[in-house]
Amino acid sequence: MRHQYHPLGFEGSRIAQGFWRLQEWEMTSSETLGFIEACLDLGVTTFDHADIYGDYQCEALFGEALKLKPALRDKMEIVTKCGILLPSDNRPDIQVHRYDYRSEHILASVDRSLENLQCDYIDTLLLHRPSPLMDADDVAQALDLLFTLGKVKHFGVSNFTTRQFDLLQSRLDAPLIINQVELSPLALQHFEDGTLDHVQQHAVTPMAWSPFAGGEMFSGTNEKAQRVQDVLQVLAQEKNCEIDQIVVAWLLHHPAGICPVMGSGKIARLATAVDAMSTPLSDDDWFRVWIASQGQPVP
Amino acid sequence: MRHQYHPLGFEGSRIAQGFWRLQEWEMTSSETLGFIEACLDLGVTTFDHADIYGDYQCEALFGEALKLKPALRDKMEIVTKCGILLPSDNRPDIQVHRYDYRSEHILASVDRSLENLQCDYIDTLLLHRPSPLMDADDVAQALDLLFTLGKVKHFGVSNFTTRQFDLLQSRLDAPLIINQVELSPLALQHFEDGTLDHVQQHAVTPMAWSPFAGGEMFSGTNEKAQRVQDVLQVLAQEKNCEIDQIVVAWLLHHPAGICPVMGSGKIARLATAVDAMSTPLSDDDWFRVWIASQGQPVP
Amino acid sequence: MRHQYHPLGFEGSRIAQGFWRLQEWEMTSSETLGFIEACLDLGVTTFDHADIYGDYQCEALFGEALKLKPALRDKMEIVTKCGILLPSDNRPDIQVHRYDYRSEHILASVDRSLENLQCDYIDTLLLHRPSPLMDADDVAQALDLLFTLGKVKHFGVSNFTTRQFDLLQSRLDAPLIINQVELSPLALQHFEDGTLDHVQQHAVTPMAWSPFAGGEMFSGTNEKAQRVQDVLQVLAQEKNCEIDQIVVAWLLHHPAGICPVMGSGKIARLATAVDAMSTPLSDDDWFRVWIASQGQPVP
Repeated sequence: MRHQYHPLGFEGSRIAQGFWRLQEWEMTSSETLGFIEACLDLGVTTFDHADIYGDYQCEALFGEALKLKPALRDKMEIVTKCGILLPSDNRPDIQVHRYDYRSEHILASVDRSLENLQCDYIDTLLLHRPSPLMDADDVAQALDLLFTLGKVKHFGVSNFTTRQFDLLQSRLDAPLIINQVELSPLALQHFEDGTLDHVQQHAVTPMAWSPFAGGEMFSGTNEKAQRVQDVLQVLAQEKNCEIDQIVVAWLLHHPAGICPVMGSGKIARLATAVDAMSTPLSDDDWFRVWIASQGQPVP
Repeated sequence: MRHQYHPLGFEGSRIAQGFWRLQEWEMTSSETLGFIEACLDLGVTTFDHADIYGDYQCEALFGEALKLKPALRDKMEIVTKCGILLPSDNRPDIQVHRYDYRSEHILASVDRSLENLQCDYIDTLLLHRPSPLMDADDVAQALDLLFTLGKVKHFGVSNFTTRQFDLLQSRLDAPLIINQVELSPLALQHFEDGTLDHVQQHAVTPMAWSPFAGGEMFSGTNEKAQRVQDVLQVLAQEKNCEIDQIVVAWLLHHPAGICPVMGSGKIARLATAVDAMSTPLSDDDWFRVWIASQGQPVP
Repeated sequence: MRHQYHPLGFEGSRIAQGFWRLQEWEMTSSETLGFIEACLDLGVTTFDHADIYGDYQCEALFGEALKLKPALRDKMEIVTKCGILLPSDNRPDIQVHRYDYRSEHILASVDRSLENLQCDYIDTLLLHRPSPLMDADDVAQALDLLFTLGKVKHFGVSNFTTRQFDLLQSRLDAPLIINQVELSPLALQHFEDGTLDHVQQHAVTPMAWSPFAGGEMFSGTNEKAQRVQDVLQVLAQEKNCEIDQIVVAWLLHHPAGICPVMGSGKIARLATAVDAMSTPLSDDDWFRVWIASQGQPVP
C-alpha cells in the first residue's frame, strides 16, 4: 500500500481518501476521528483536501477531529489545494468565481489551510486548476518560500495540461510530483491527450479524481456508461468482487502508477477499494473495459 | 511604454502600431509622416509591417514617408514579415496563394522590404505563417545570413504552433523572440492551446494581432460578442473610459507580456490604447471578460 | 533511391514496398521471389512487414520465398512490427483484439518474426500502435536485449503521437529512427498536428502508410476526394505521367523526407512510384494539391 510518489520523495499510500464531501457526511468530530483512524488501519494514509471543499469548511472539520488526537498527524500525509476563488457566505470578500495564484494569495491560502487543518505543515500542496492568469515566476516565489518556511514539503498541480506543467516546472527548483486529473473508465481523455505520457516521462504521479465518474459508473444510463457497466459486472462476477473493486484495479493496473482518490464516507467502500490492491486484472480484462468505454475496437 | 521583448534583446514599445491598412487610409506621404511622428510622440515606436500588406504596397508607402525625415529611423523599431505569396497585379510572377520559405525567397523578400521601407535594416523579421513545406534548415541558413549581413537584427514567427516554433528554434543560433498570434477577448484559443504557456516558458513575446477581433468587439452581433460587449461596457463605465481601452488593458494584464498591435489610422484611437497602460484592471475585471467570452463559469 | 533514415544509421530505399497484402496476391513462393527480385532491381530494397499482416501469415510467405535464395537477405532491409494482438484461427491463444508491449511479448514476437521471415535479424522493428498500457521501461528492456542479441538493428514506432514518442525515447539509449504514420493528400492530419514537425526536429524518418488512402485517391467519390483527383489529373497531364506518380512525388517533395510504403503486388505500379523520384513537383504544384484537399485557400 505504501507508494513512492516521486523519486525525490513523498511516500504516501497508493490509494488516497478524499474529504471533499466531509461536510455532507454530518459526522461529529469524534466520528470523523473514528473514520480517520479506520482509514489509517486500512493503510490509507494519504488524505486529499482543498481549501474550497465543503464551501471552505471541510479542512476545518478535519482539523477539529485531528485536534482530538494530534499524534495521528505523523501517521498520515495531507494533500491540499489552493487557487480557486468561490463566492460563498464563508468568504464574503470573493466577488467572482475565478482563480488566484498571486503569491500573496497562495501564502495566505496555505496559512488558512494550516490553521483549519490544525497542522504545522502540508505534505503536498497542489495548484487546484490552471489559470490563464498564472504568473509562473510569482507562483515559484510563493512555493519556494513555503518550502523554506517548512509549511509545505512537496508541490504538485491538478488538471494541468502538459504545457502548463512544463511552464511552471521551468520556474521551480523543486519537482512537481503530482498531477491530479480526472481518470476513470468513463473519462479516458487524459489517457489519450498526452497527460499520462507526460507524467510517466517525468516520473510524476497521476492522482485520479472522480474514479467512479461521480457515480455514473454505477448508475449512468447513457450508452457508454451501460457498455462499461456491463463489462464491469462480468468482471466482478468472474472475480467474485464488487464493481468498484474492478474500477480501482483497472486504474491501478495502468503503468503510470495512478493513485485513485476515494470519496465515500463509508469505510466499507474504502475497504473495497483497498481490496483492489489484491485483485489483479489481466491485460485482456483491462482492454475489455477500455474497448467498452471507447465503443469500438482498438485501431 | 518601453518593453524588453526578449532577455537577449529587442527593446520596443509595449503597444505597437500596425500598418496593414495604410493604403486604405489614403494619406499623402507627408500625412503619413505626421502620423508616424504622432505615434512616436505617444511613445509607440514599434511599427508592424508585412511584405504583403496593402497588396504589397504598404511598406513602400511607409518608406516614402520615412524618406522625408530619415532621422526618424533610429527612433523606431520596424517589424516586418515574409513568407506569404499572394497573387496580385503587383506581383505577376505569383500564381498560387501559398507560402514560400526557401532561403532564396526569404533573402529576396527582405531585400524588397528594405528597399520599400527605405531602410538599412529590419529590427525584427517574422515568418508570417507556418508552412507545411518549411524546411527549417533552409530557413536557418537564410536567417543566419541576414543577421550576418546586418539586414535583420532579430527574428520571430507569427501564427506558429508550439511544435513548429520548437522545430525552427532547434535549427537557429539566435532566439526567436516573438510569436505574433491572434489574441483578444473574442479569440481565446491561444490562451488555452499551449501557445501562451510556451512563450512564457521560453521568454518569447506574444504580439497580439486583431486585438479587437476585426471590429467584432464593438459591432459583433452573435451571442458571444454581445456577452463580451456587455461586460466591456460595464467596465468602461466603471473606469470612465473607452471600450477599446478596456480591451487593451485586458491584454496588457496577462502575465505573458502581450504586446497588442493597433491598426487604426486615427491617432486618437492609438492614444486611447496608450491610455490603457494606466488603466489597470483587477483580476476580477479580467475574469469577468474571460467568463463572458467563454459563456460559462470557470471549471 | 538510397536514403539515410537517421543520422546514426539505417540506410534503406526512399520508397519502400509493403507486404500487408502478400497473402491476397496468391503467389507461389517462386512468384514471390520473382516479385522481390523485381523490387530490388528497381532499387526498392526496404520491405515493410508486420507480424499480423495477412492474419499472421505474410511474414512466413515472404520467408518461404527468401529461403529459395537466401543470399538476397543482405540486399534488402526488413522492417517489421509487433504489438497488436488479433484474434485469429492462426493464434487461438489471443482472446481480445488489443495491444501487448510487455517485454516477454515483444521478445517472443520478434523470435516468431525471425522464424517466419527465415532471417537472423530484423533491420528495423516498429511498435505498431501506441498502447495505453505501454510501460516504457519494460519496452526499453526488451529493445535493449534485442539489440544486444543482434536480433534487431534499429527501432522505431508507428502511429505514435509526439508525447508517446518522447516518453519511449526518454527510456531508450538507441534513437527511435522511424515513425510510420498515415500520410497522403487525403490524410493531412499528421502534417498539421505536430507529428511532422517533431520528426524533423529529431531527425526521425516519417514513413507514409496508405499513401493512396486505400484507393480513395483514385476512386473516392466524396467532394474532398474529387477535388484532389481533379488537381492530380491536371498535374498528371501536365507532366505526362500517372496520378500515383504525382501522389508519390507529392510525398517526396515534403522537407521531412517522407518514405512512402507501396502496397501493390503489381511491379508496374511500383515502377510508377519509383518514377516519381524523377518527377519533381514545384511548390506551386504541391500547394495546389494541398489546397484542393483542404477545400479552402491557405490562411
